[in-house]
Amino acid sequence: MGRPWREQLEDRARAALPAPVLEYVLQGAREGVTAAEATEAWRQVRFLPRVLRDVTEVDLSVDLLGRRARVPWGVAPSTLQRAVHPEGELAMARATAAAGTVMVVSSNVGTPFAEIAATGVRWWVQAYLPADRSLADGLLTRARDAGAEAVVLTVDTPVVGTKYTAGAPVWDVVDPALLRVNFDAGYDDDAPGAVKATDLGPADLARLREVTGLPVLVKGVLRPDDARACLDAGAAAVWVSNHGGRQLDRAATTAACLPGVVAAVGERAPVYVDGGLRSGLDVLAALALGADAVFLGRSPLLALVDGEGGVARLHRDLAAEVDEALRLAGCRSVADTPALLLTDRRDERRQGL
Amino acid sequence: MGRPWREQLEDRARAALPAPVLEYVLQGAREGVTAAEATEAWRQVRFLPRVLRDVTEVDLSVDLLGRRARVPWGVAPSTLQRAVHPEGELAMARATAAAGTVMVVSSNVGTPFAEIAATGVRWWVQAYLPADRSLADGLLTRARDAGAEAVVLTVDTPVVGTKYTAGAPVWDVVDPALLRVNFDAGYDDDAPGAVKATDLGPADLARLREVTGLPVLVKGVLRPDDARACLDAGAAAVWVSNHGGRQLDRAATTAACLPGVVAAVGERAPVYVDGGLRSGLDVLAALALGADAVFLGRSPLLALVDGEGGVARLHRDLAAEVDEALRLAGCRSVADTPALLLTDRRDERRQGL
Amino acid sequence: MGRPWREQLEDRARAALPAPVLEYVLQGAREGVTAAEATEAWRQVRFLPRVLRDVTEVDLSVDLLGRRARVPWGVAPSTLQRAVHPEGELAMARATAAAGTVMVVSSNVGTPFAEIAATGVRWWVQAYLPADRSLADGLLTRARDAGAEAVVLTVDTPVVGTKYTAGAPVWDVVDPALLRVNFDAGYDDDAPGAVKATDLGPADLARLREVTGLPVLVKGVLRPDDARACLDAGAAAVWVSNHGGRQLDRAATTAACLPGVVAAVGERAPVYVDGGLRSGLDVLAALALGADAVFLGRSPLLALVDGEGGVARLHRDLAAEVDEALRLAGCRSVADTPALLLTDRRDERRQGL
Amino acid sequence: MGRPWREQLEDRARAALPAPVLEYVLQGAREGVTAAEATEAWRQVRFLPRVLRDVTEVDLSVDLLGRRARVPWGVAPSTLQRAVHPEGELAMARATAAAGTVMVVSSNVGTPFAEIAATGVRWWVQAYLPADRSLADGLLTRARDAGAEAVVLTVDTPVVGTKYTAGAPVWDVVDPALLRVNFDAGYDDDAPGAVKATDLGPADLARLREVTGLPVLVKGVLRPDDARACLDAGAAAVWVSNHGGRQLDRAATTAACLPGVVAAVGERAPVYVDGGLRSGLDVLAALALGADAVFLGRSPLLALVDGEGGVARLHRDLAAEVDEALRLAGCRSVADTPALLLTDRRDERRQGL
Ligand SMILES: Cc1cc2nc3c(=O)[nH]c(=O)nc-3n(C[C@H](O)[C@H](O)[C@H](O)COP(=O)(O)O)c2cc1C
Ligand SMILES: Cc1cc2nc3c(=O)[nH]c(=O)nc-3n(C[C@H](O)[C@H](O)[C@H](O)COP(=O)(O)O)c2cc1C
Ligand SMILES: Cc1cc2nc3c(=O)[nH]c(=O)nc-3n(C[C@H](O)[C@H](O)[C@H](O)COP(=O)(O)O)c2cc1C
Ligand SMILES: Cc1cc2nc3c(=O)[nH]c(=O)nc-3n(C[C@H](O)[C@H](O)[C@H](O)COP(=O)(O)O)c2cc1C
Repeated sequence: MGRPWREQLEDRARAALPAPVLEYVLQGAREGVTAAEATEAWRQVRFLPRVLRDVTEVDLSVDLLGRRARVPWGVAPSTLQRAVHPEGELAMARATAAAGTVMVVSSNVGTPFAEIAATGVRWWVQAYLPADRSLADGLLTRARDAGAEAVVLTVDTPVVGTKYTAGAPVWDVVDPALLRVNFDAGYDDDAPGAVKATDLGPADLARLREVTGLPVLVKGVLRPDDARACLDAGAAAVWVSNHGGRQLDRAATTAACLPGVVAAVGERAPVYVDGGLRSGLDVLAALALGADAVFLGRSPLLALVDGEGGVARLHRDLAAEVDEALRLAGCRSVADTPALLLTDRRDERRQGL
Repeated sequence: MGRPWREQLEDRARAALPAPVLEYVLQGAREGVTAAEATEAWRQVRFLPRVLRDVTEVDLSVDLLGRRARVPWGVAPSTLQRAVHPEGELAMARATAAAGTVMVVSSNVGTPFAEIAATGVRWWVQAYLPADRSLADGLLTRARDAGAEAVVLTVDTPVVGTKYTAGAPVWDVVDPALLRVNFDAGYDDDAPGAVKATDLGPADLARLREVTGLPVLVKGVLRPDDARACLDAGAAAVWVSNHGGRQLDRAATTAACLPGVVAAVGERAPVYVDGGLRSGLDVLAALALGADAVFLGRSPLLALVDGEGGVARLHRDLAAEVDEALRLAGCRSVADTPALLLTDRRDERRQGL
Repeated sequence: MGRPWREQLEDRARAALPAPVLEYVLQGAREGVTAAEATEAWRQVRFLPRVLRDVTEVDLSVDLLGRRARVPWGVAPSTLQRAVHPEGELAMARATAAAGTVMVVSSNVGTPFAEIAATGVRWWVQAYLPADRSLADGLLTRARDAGAEAVVLTVDTPVVGTKYTAGAPVWDVVDPALLRVNFDAGYDDDAPGAVKATDLGPADLARLREVTGLPVLVKGVLRPDDARACLDAGAAAVWVSNHGGRQLDRAATTAACLPGVVAAVGERAPVYVDGGLRSGLDVLAALALGADAVFLGRSPLLALVDGEGGVARLHRDLAAEVDEALRLAGCRSVADTPALLLTDRRDERRQGL
Repeated sequence: MGRPWREQLEDRARAALPAPVLEYVLQGAREGVTAAEATEAWRQVRFLPRVLRDVTEVDLSVDLLGRRARVPWGVAPSTLQRAVHPEGELAMARATAAAGTVMVVSSNVGTPFAEIAATGVRWWVQAYLPADRSLADGLLTRARDAGAEAVVLTVDTPVVGTKYTAGAPVWDVVDPALLRVNFDAGYDDDAPGAVKATDLGPADLARLREVTGLPVLVKGVLRPDDARACLDAGAAAVWVSNHGGRQLDRAATTAACLPGVVAAVGERAPVYVDGGLRSGLDVLAALALGADAVFLGRSPLLALVDGEGGVARLHRDLAAEVDEALRLAGCRSVADTPALLLTDRRDERRQGL
């Protein structure tokens, strides 16, 4: 077998996308330290495979908020999918539905929620909240009504982290209206309170639950203390993320932060993680470090250059990689993976360390 | 003295072998991380030589399952030796017999067991078991009858790890029948139960002992807990291996795993190791880390490009290197080597740490 | 946004300055190990940003010896500012005054103290003491009379560290008199006692306080024991510095030394630090490691190539960077930053560790 | 000041010496790992200079076996000095006498002991012992009679470590008789017992003391246990060395081994060290790690390309470097240097750790 197709994703995108879109997708904040370290951090994890275990049947499925997903990953929220491929979120949704897992839909997507829902994909809505929280209520309740199963509150973006760009701004080739198709009709960016909230707090979780009736996940947590605060405020899950290195540069890698958060959360809630996950072995590393599931950002976004077929192929190839990795590691399911490290993070977790 | 001949083995093979065969021999699984790290890991071991000790007589011999081998290494099992040199296993066997040590014969070799045995070499048979275990009984009892002293059960291959290949598959230039000359006559790959077992377990050790009456070694162990389970199941020895990095990529190096296994096994059984051992100093490193003996895979396979003479030269050169290294390190025998590290792994072992 | 302007400072200086002046500004002692490691050491600090905290208002100000500075840095003392730009110290002072912070004026500057003071900048005078201490009394009392708020005693220069230079000496293009405009009239370098003191001791702090009536800071401390000795001798603050790597090569980086000094000093006095700080994230790293404020040497000196406007731009850009970094890190002020590391250095400090 | 002259030594030697001699001087054993790591290991030591200490007077002298040497280093034994420069050992001796320190004279030098002694240099004789110890008695008593103050027994060479050479053997251009001018007249290399001893032991120290009446140092110790055994056997000093990386490759660096030996030896005897020391800062690192003095091998040998003047310049330049380094580090003497590391090795030593 030749090198995996997914290794070509960046080159394919380079050939297919306008330079500003490609740069937008790949970029990290400032000097790109955190973005660059992400994948390498997973790659540094070394496994201690188990032997003499029956791996005839291997189960890739995981629980995602009470329902089974066929694979231990979902699709992370990202904007501008329609700048990557004309079918954008719809192609992403169809392929993800076929893979049997969840798609998180950014509040800034270019496709109406109802159309995404109509693909049959399981989906959660991601929220950035404005200073006047009530301005987002319409969008969120519409998402719920269209079938969103949960709200993912992104908390790492009180301001947008500066990126150094070499080329023209993405808005030279993309209409910013693309970000707002699910906003209230006539939404006014310049209205008082429409600016991004800089004072998100634990109370926002309760408010979101009240307004939507949905479970609320917190995306962008790197610290044990913050993870505990989220759970105390009623979070349904903690999502370890540094926004793909697009916010605070020199933030620690999610691979480095995951074990601490897993230990702090213990059995109270699931812990998800994203950032730099590219291969089946990367996924295995994150699961072994204690994640209950992972989310993929740039990988499916780049695969989307080839439309639904591209995303489907990515899901399929990764499933084959994780399946093989589990077998070779002597694991029958995701629950077996923490044993692959010398120190079992799940064990520590059970003991509340 | 110029650079050692063994450093040219890869270049010589590149000149002599069809590209697919060379690639087959050298390849590691996936991105080749584990394969690439193997040699470097031994190379990172630093010695604290002892002085003021009498090294007039230096004894390179070790006990291998109750009989003395003249050197502290054996030849690891590998397929396709006849694709490397027309005399294949016979040349390997003759040179290894002359060196006074053991050759492990893969169950997938291209030369009948009896012919190998006729060279006078001490040999052990390596086994991959099929789903229906009884389908291997014929091959194994024939091996025993031909003089195999032990069965080496390879446990790291429930499925074959994916390799990314640049060129044509090895089967373009090699007849797959070469792998099966010792199988039952008319062995049918497609028969139910003929597929590789994915449910090897401790019970297989007992069964193998019963069927063959031979001691059973377990090859492919990286973990202390698995090592203990092997001993509990009656293993005659534990062989630390990640299959030369050809199975689970990003598996830890055997150099990293060896001390943990040595400590877990204690005095209960010998511990062998393979993976990336190329020079006399590599061998010294493995012995110092607590191995009772080491096995060499790619080195003798590449030396076989020059036939029996090549393998003989490799054995001879390594013996000279290890002999010199022991003297310079103030060691009179393999038993002295663990003292070369600041922490003596054998000591920990005696104390069952 | 493109790469930050400050990244071009060295190239701009290369184009504008005579080679000997540029080399003088950039050089480190001997092999330049310490100079080269300085920036990388800050760059290696990884942050654990806090989330769900109100960062609507972010306060960059810090206390500098009892008065508020608008930003958490000041300008470190450096000679030859007039060799970098004709307006030299005056341009530096005006821009620094506008930024709302302190400029430390070297005893070897090329502009009379009174003129610097006339810009309205807050300033401290830096002192190298001669063997006969009284020879510096005139300069220091004149500084005090001209409005210097404090004396910064540099203690890392009993002799000037050797630099290996590629080109011509800076004195080929600069008149050494430039260093002495604030010395006593007719100051004789060859007078007995005029040579640099090699026997600075704690008693010099008391003497300086007596002669000038000003608080005395000690610049050039890397060790916890020395920091304590300074406080015992009455130092108003400890300034962790290795002179930008221009004195003892292979001295530890200030990033490595800072935590130990912070812990030793505890609540007794403020701790400042300089060396290799180039970006807003570098500043955040130093604050997170426990510094109360930082000082910038080569950065403003290189920005001075563009005169007052250059220095002003540097102050402005860094303020924007630190402001954004604080927000993204969930910090409302400098006091919040130590929490960004897994171990809070300030906490240790409070406990006198 | 330009780059130091000593950095050119290798290039000057390359221009002046026959290739086989240059290769002989520079070579390390096998892959040269230990030889290559030596200098870098000292370079990795980071200092914590002390401040506010009187460094007006700095004393570079150290005690070497009861007499003061003006600098904290001596010249290590090396063969073939006359192949490097026609005046060989005499030039080395004169320059070393002028520097006020000790030269260790190899038993394999090309100049009669009496001639070396006539230069007035303090000198010690280095011994390799033959299997029949009495065969060396003549050489050693002659050395004593010619004024050797001590015997340095080299214990790391039971056999000569293999070197991989690119070019012709040194003996193509050098007469091996050059190694034996101080041997007994008519010494027969092929006599029984003339071969290098492979059974050196503690008893040899007592015998050497008896035969010569001189103190005996042991050169080639890397381990704490061996250091203790040497002292128990009456060694006057322990000399930490791996023979410049010319014996067991992958032996630990002397920088790594020194602290352990220093701690084991405690106050019982002085500890010397060699290997890779090239600059004044390297010397400072070794002293700070606890050495009582250091020895230089390749540096003075390469400086000898320029004859007595070259060696003199090396001594002079290093003295200036160490002098400056001590001042910048706030040390008045060698005794102050261990404080430059965060953990004071001498302190541990006093406490017998
Ligand atoms: C182009 C792009 C757009 C993104 N848009 C959003 C978004 O709208 N909301 C959000 O919470 N995260 C967004 N993210 C962050 C991702 O959800 C995710 O945290 C990150 O991409 C994971 O890292 P990875 O790309 O290395 O897999 C975006 C990421 C990218 C690359
Ligand atoms: C070409 C090749 C074929 C191999 N075939 C077998 C095999 O049939 N059975 C087995 O247990 N191991 C097999 N191995 C693994 C070796 O026994 C051994 O574990 C590995 O090669 C050791 O690493 P080294 O090659 O770096 O010395 C093979 C290895 C190679 C390189
Ligand atoms: C060109 C130059 C001149 C300097 N002159 C002085 C000085 O006169 N007095 C002093 O205490 N420090 C002096 N320093 C050291 C600085 O105050 C400061 O410690 C150092 O530059 C900080 O490191 P940085 O340049 O990496 O920011 C000088 C530094 C430079 C680069
Ligand atoms: C060319 C050469 C010849 C040497 N000859 C001897 C010798 O005859 N006896 C001995 O004890 N050590 C000998 N040595 C080792 C040195 O005494 C010393 O241990 C080593 O050179 C120190 O390392 P350095 O060269 O990096 O300073 C020799 C070293 C060299 C480079």
